[in-house]
Amino acid sequence: MTPLDRGLDKARVLIEALPYIQKFAGKTVVIKYGGHAMLEQDLKEKVMLDLLLLHSVGIRPVVVHGGGPEINSMLTKVGKESHFIRGLRVTDKETMEIAAMVLVGKLNTDIVSMLNRFGGKAVGLSGMDAQLLQAVKKPMQMQNSQGELEDVDLGFVGEVEQVRPGILTTLLEQGYVPVISPLAGGEDGESYNINADTAAGEIAKALKADKFLLLTDVPGVLRDVENHDSLISVIEEKEIPKLVEEGVISGGMIPKVECAQEALQGGVGSVHILDGRIPHAILLELFTDGGIGTMFQP
Amino acid sequence: MTPLDRGLDKARVLIEALPYIQKFAGKTVVIKYGGHAMLEQDLKEKVMLDLLLLHSVGIRPVVVHGGGPEINSMLTKVGKESHFIRGLRVTDKETMEIAAMVLVGKLNTDIVSMLNRFGGKAVGLSGMDAQLLQAVKKPMQMQNSQGELEDVDLGFVGEVEQVRPGILTTLLEQGYVPVISPLAGGEDGESYNINADTAAGEIAKALKADKFLLLTDVPGVLRDVENHDSLISVIEEKEIPKLVEEGVISGGMIPKVECAQEALQGGVGSVHILDGRIPHAILLELFTDGGIGTMFQP
Amino acid sequence: MTPLDRGLDKARVLIEALPYIQKFAGKTVVIKYGGHAMLEQDLKEKVMLDLLLLHSVGIRPVVVHGGGPEINSMLTKVGKESHFIRGLRVTDKETMEIAAMVLVGKLNTDIVSMLNRFGGKAVGLSGMDAQLLQAVKKPMQMQNSQGELEDVDLGFVGEVEQVRPGILTTLLEQGYVPVISPLAGGEDGESYNINADTAAGEIAKALKADKFLLLTDVPGVLRDVENHDSLISVIEEKEIPKLVEEGVISGGMIPKVECAQEALQGGVGSVHILDGRIPHAILLELFTDGGIGTMFQP
Amino acid sequence: MTPLDRGLDKARVLIEALPYIQKFAGKTVVIKYGGHAMLEQDLKEKVMLDLLLLHSVGIRPVVVHGGGPEINSMLTKVGKESHFIRGLRVTDKETMEIAAMVLVGKLNTDIVSMLNRFGGKAVGLSGMDAQLLQAVKKPMQMQNSQGELEDVDLGFVGEVEQVRPGILTTLLEQGYVPVISPLAGGEDGESYNINADTAAGEIAKALKADKFLLLTDVPGVLRDVENHDSLISVIEEKEIPKLVEEGVISGGMIPKVECAQEALQGGVGSVHILDGRIPHAILLELFTDGGIGTMFQP
Amino acid sequence: MTPLDRGLDKARVLIEALPYIQKFAGKTVVIKYGGHAMLEQDLKEKVMLDLLLLHSVGIRPVVVHGGGPEINSMLTKVGKESHFIRGLRVTDKETMEIAAMVLVGKLNTDIVSMLNRFGGKAVGLSGMDAQLLQAVKKPMQMQNSQGELEDVDLGFVGEVEQVRPGILTTLLEQGYVPVISPLAGGEDGESYNINADTAAGEIAKALKADKFLLLTDVPGVLRDVENHDSLISVIEEKEIPKLVEEGVISGGMIPKVECAQEALQGGVGSVHILDGRIPHAILLELFTDGGIGTMFQP
Amino acid sequence: MTPLDRGLDKARVLIEALPYIQKFAGKTVVIKYGGHAMLEQDLKEKVMLDLLLLHSVGIRPVVVHGGGPEINSMLTKVGKESHFIRGLRVTDKETMEIAAMVLVGKLNTDIVSMLNRFGGKAVGLSGMDAQLLQAVKKPMQMQNSQGELEDVDLGFVGEVEQVRPGILTTLLEQGYVPVISPLAGGEDGESYNINADTAAGEIAKALKADKFLLLTDVPGVLRDVENHDSLISVIEEKEIPKLVEEGVISGGMIPKVECAQEALQGGVGSVHILDGRIPHAILLELFTDGGIGTMFQP
Repeated sequence: MTPLDRGLDKARVLIEALPYIQKFAGKTVVIKYGGHAMLEQDLKEKVMLDLLLLHSVGIRPVVVHGGGPEINSMLTKVGKESHFIRGLRVTDKETMEIAAMVLVGKLNTDIVSMLNRFGGKAVGLSGMDAQLLQAVKKPMQMQNSQGELEDVDLGFVGEVEQVRPGILTTLLEQGYVPVISPLAGGEDGESYNINADTAAGEIAKALKADKFLLLTDVPGVLRDVENHDSLISVIEEKEIPKLVEEGVISGGMIPKVECAQEALQGGVGSVHILDGRIPHAILLELFTDGGIGTMFQP
Repeated sequence: MTPLDRGLDKARVLIEALPYIQKFAGKTVVIKYGGHAMLEQDLKEKVMLDLLLLHSVGIRPVVVHGGGPEINSMLTKVGKESHFIRGLRVTDKETMEIAAMVLVGKLNTDIVSMLNRFGGKAVGLSGMDAQLLQAVKKPMQMQNSQGELEDVDLGFVGEVEQVRPGILTTLLEQGYVPVISPLAGGEDGESYNINADTAAGEIAKALKADKFLLLTDVPGVLRDVENHDSLISVIEEKEIPKLVEEGVISGGMIPKVECAQEALQGGVGSVHILDGRIPHAILLELFTDGGIGTMFQP
Repeated sequence: MTPLDRGLDKARVLIEALPYIQKFAGKTVVIKYGGHAMLEQDLKEKVMLDLLLLHSVGIRPVVVHGGGPEINSMLTKVGKESHFIRGLRVTDKETMEIAAMVLVGKLNTDIVSMLNRFGGKAVGLSGMDAQLLQAVKKPMQMQNSQGELEDVDLGFVGEVEQVRPGILTTLLEQGYVPVISPLAGGEDGESYNINADTAAGEIAKALKADKFLLLTDVPGVLRDVENHDSLISVIEEKEIPKLVEEGVISGGMIPKVECAQEALQGGVGSVHILDGRIPHAILLELFTDGGIGTMFQP
Repeated sequence: MTPLDRGLDKARVLIEALPYIQKFAGKTVVIKYGGHAMLEQDLKEKVMLDLLLLHSVGIRPVVVHGGGPEINSMLTKVGKESHFIRGLRVTDKETMEIAAMVLVGKLNTDIVSMLNRFGGKAVGLSGMDAQLLQAVKKPMQMQNSQGELEDVDLGFVGEVEQVRPGILTTLLEQGYVPVISPLAGGEDGESYNINADTAAGEIAKALKADKFLLLTDVPGVLRDVENHDSLISVIEEKEIPKLVEEGVISGGMIPKVECAQEALQGGVGSVHILDGRIPHAILLELFTDGGIGTMFQP
Repeated sequence: MTPLDRGLDKARVLIEALPYIQKFAGKTVVIKYGGHAMLEQDLKEKVMLDLLLLHSVGIRPVVVHGGGPEINSMLTKVGKESHFIRGLRVTDKETMEIAAMVLVGKLNTDIVSMLNRFGGKAVGLSGMDAQLLQAVKKPMQMQNSQGELEDVDLGFVGEVEQVRPGILTTLLEQGYVPVISPLAGGEDGESYNINADTAAGEIAKALKADKFLLLTDVPGVLRDVENHDSLISVIEEKEIPKLVEEGVISGGMIPKVECAQEALQGGVGSVHILDGRIPHAILLELFTDGGIGTMFQP
Repeated sequence: MTPLDRGLDKARVLIEALPYIQKFAGKTVVIKYGGHAMLEQDLKEKVMLDLLLLHSVGIRPVVVHGGGPEINSMLTKVGKESHFIRGLRVTDKETMEIAAMVLVGKLNTDIVSMLNRFGGKAVGLSGMDAQLLQAVKKPMQMQNSQGELEDVDLGFVGEVEQVRPGILTTLLEQGYVPVISPLAGGEDGESYNINADTAAGEIAKALKADKFLLLTDVPGVLRDVENHDSLISVIEEKEIPKLVEEGVISGGMIPKVECAQEALQGGVGSVHILDGRIPHAILLELFTDGGIGTMFQP
């Protein structure tokens, strides 16, 4: 293959991407970034490059990141033990402070730093900046030994009460890529930890985003969980209840799908659950026919 | 090769293009479009796709087209004979009218139409629109039979006297791709035919374009005209006189290089002479290392 | 009469025009330009001057021109025979190309050129530019020898399907005068010829124009077609059916009035049918009491 | 003469005005309005109509008015005697208050009211509004009986120290016609009366006006003051000293010419001294060849 | 008390004002200025300072002033006798002229001048400027000696028919403080005197002002008119009829409250009747808990 | 003291602040926030309130914070020992990560959170966001045991090489208060710790700030360090060398003054060193005559 032939091959690929680029130009895409794609250096770099490519062809990406494993490591490092209720970490003041430090001071800063090193214009935010996310304490009840329902205090675990997307609009209009840590301020002046999927969904709704992508560690919704070739590429919102009933959507997929459903109902164009373990998952989802994950549409 | 592998290959190509896209975002690139690339349907489509790809990654392309062969065909069709002096067609009123019809009514309309069919937002202009190009009659002198210099009347062949790029700026800022026919209005109210290379160069200067690409039917400047591998990739403006003296730049290349030189002196960032017979020549020039033609830089 | 007296007379005329100028400032006026007013040099110049005067007092004129006779001449010149069905020219590929060349490359260019020579800022467009006009093939049926209805193929004769007035708004806001040839692009990538009255009416609707002027070769609607003093100055939309029934509106006036009616229903402020054979017909219609033609209002 | 002929005559006049309209579009013209043109109702209305016509064809007029005679009447009415030094009224506090009431409360209000009644968008201002004009007390010295120079106190007679044209720019950009009374505020918090010619000249300089028109009660500069046909139409700034020396410019014309000269030196395009007693003097000066007064140019 | 302590005291006061400043930032507040607060020099200065402080913390004040007493003085001065019908002055042409001179030429100019001397950017307007206020003659009927109702001619006393707030918006957006005299132009070309409370209320409505403050010479609405401690701080619109019925709102308070009521119905946020005799009444009303007057709210 | 009297006292204080508010409206003030004012909760709140008051009266504050003590605590907590060279902490990768977490994830988040709780619109940034601060490794040399100069590696301690203030301008124009952590990205993709005073000074220069305030734990420059009444209120840049020579500026004050000097030379209007231990130090410095610290001016 001569260099010219190689060049022509590349030109052909670029031209094949043109209809996708034209279709998505000016669209706002919210990406929940987490899981393996955030832990392995190589996948991480590829996510960054995907984001920058989207940005460079006129798409407006907004990143919301998670970070459970790193928070765990740091808690361990400072000798802080964790206590869980129904899978939710009881978050006392000190835990909250450490979570904030890891999310905002380490993970967010790393993402911003890497995007900018590759030529981007990223700006890190937490939900506290410009009062982007406002939270209330997440209520929870459990049966006590007498079988009565009792309030349980999870500490600084919050639910999103209001989103003020003004700062995002300002940044997007100036060509910046916002990278957001899932913290929120409460009216009580406290900081709250927010589930990253939920935070991303709420932000997608507030921005009336065209697309909301959830990077996960599963291939998408499989009709037969044992068979990766049974991936369902497109699910319409009205099909969801039946799929839940049939057990196709089950387990850890349920909260993801609920999150997707709420986003669709809030005006988001489509929601995509995709496998962040595949390199360039974002590009593959947006720029190839059919994509690689499961797309939920209204 | 699985579909996923093919997808990954494509993703890699897109990512490899990222640094070029980032480098050229927001730049204005004037393209003189002519020669074979304008005659063969397949090459033509590829030029259109290249232009649209540039546009979709944030570059601002401005197209100036030629059209000698089509004017000839039409003149033949209506039974009009042509008379040439030193290679320039003596352009009487009727010839001028036919040239205008072919350039503006056929070629320009075709380019605009094809760009828009592929999803673009192109707008056709002639140099008369919004007084974009203002011309004076091109003066010429020849020796008569007594060996004295005498003025020769070439008719409506003009030289650019002034460029008013306001309409281009208006269109570029609104995201349109201007496609320009090389006609100009004179202060005498007449229309003039302008050499397309010169028209493109003058427009590049008036826009302070970052790049000016001349699509030709030669590979670029060859050190040894017999040997296509002897292409000179980069020529600095100050090297030109020596290359002319050595005969490396000669024949039909001389007016092209003079055009390049004048553009550089007028503030254009770089001028590229490239081979329009190669498919996707524009993409290959801008998006591969070294490109495929000869780049002149200040 | 002293020069001062002459000056004062002129000042008085200007001042008399003031209320009209104030009334129309900032209004958008679409003018269908065709007929004699386009064929005779002297009338042509007066139309141009009228347009520029409108523009200079703050009106936003948009010109849509016709050009049947010139297309005919050109077809004759290249020895192309024409075939008509119910008054519509069967337009094969070659005819279409010639029509485009004459309309865009000759007539439009001439109008733009003349406007700019008189100090204007005109920009020529066809319906293909920026996808201004999108067409579908005009359907037609005729009875065959068995008396059955059969589809007849008129070739590239189109009907307007969609208007995208964005480019007009951009140009009007920057103070340009758009001059439009009645061509349109189809989704099939072909170019179509459009009836100029219809094209102008569709554009007037898309712009929600304040006024739509049709320059014709008749004085307007006459109550008694033999008596030019029987001109009806104002017709309300609801009166039209009765006037048709009475035969006051008949013959070639019917499609014009239908065009007017559709424009009114599409939100155009008023439609004027006036006699383009009268010099300065446009100024007389807009700047004198009662005008010179027939005004249709909602 | 038929109505159509009359219409055509009018159209011709409008078209003859077109080149002037095109030439002056967007220009800022400061008009010092005073003398007879302000006293006689008929002349007054014609000035208003002239101003509105200018405005309606895209010129930006700024009016500065005088008002000596009306101040005198009012002073007489309230039984206030006036005392003059070298032609300047000694202006005590009470006189100043009455001057302000007459200028701002009566004359300015009347002009604004009339302009708006004729369809304009006029806004009255005094030099105190938005600190448009800032003044210092005008110094004066006279010889006392011992022949020594002594300061004389003229009271609230001021000289312009600074112009802040921001409010004018704001109003002009929104399409308003500013009408200005020649009062100014001092740093001492007092109000000062300013010579209207000077105020207008200073405002013309601050706006870098294209034209500054002084409406007076004389025909302009006459070579022979006895002979009205000896009007000098154009005077270049450098010719002024010679004309003064020759006595062509003399008497009351000297301060007017000094005012013109200073305006030219401050960047005003041209200054015109014209006879406000001629109806439509402003239109005649701007819209006829040669005009009716004397134009000073740099 | 050391200087530092004094400084700290001041800082504390400023900080205490912060919540009020934050609450009112960007709000439009129309102030009817009249009564004692306009007659006594010291109160006057304090009103000016209050207005400037509001402006400097981001509030957009609009001032409408009255001026009955000064008009009376001037009428007396020029020996003009006044004739009243039901408390309204019969306003002949001469009276109207004097009213205009006093309001616009004296009072308005004084307010503007004082505001600007204290560092403001005030601009004086009358209702005639930019056709801000348009009036019709105020109709009135009285019984004649036969007990029949008869029209009475009050002369140039007007009622507001239309408000065109464009000029106010223009000025407010550029940071100017508009100061308005209650005159209005009629369609008949005449000037009319308008009740200042009404003018202010109409302007507040047209601007959809957040607050409308009426500076009066009473403390507000007192439950027991003898007892100043019986001030009602807040009245809801629906309570008004009952308070009128009970006689709590009576006499001169009735037209004020009607004015308030109409403003509320026209979309004004709240209306405040407060005692202009208290120094800094405006600041005290806006920047202290409960304020000092009576607030009417919807 | 009646409530009204208390109200009046407060009004007086606000009015006394008016000239300062008017003087500083629209000015950009960079504040280096550190020392005791950042450690004690009460002082901290007062700093926040001061910042918000500045913001609410039209000043544009930009906060750059330090955080040495908190970094130390955190390092201790995770059992990381520190090693110092000439007072600079050798910053290995792990230390750098912890510094980033504390600065960005804890201190910055706390400041933003508190400002927003008090009604502000604050946005936290690090120097990595939008490439605000770009650094190179800080070079250092020490003598080795042979007395030769040797490069010493301080790790990730950086010097500011470039400031890109675009993100700050964007945020300030939209009314946000930027709060900045002194981290910077290197071209090598690493993060660097920057001295907060220097970072603040560089940002003040890049913004051409009107004022740069350094909150310290000393009263300012004292002529006699033992005597707090010997504070020098104003120092002109040219006096600095003499004061250093005389020993008036010495010890820890030297780097602060060098920082001030560099800011002045970079176009900052004035630099203030003030005692952050005094409550409301910022307000006292800006809003009282003479202020409380030392002002350096060009």
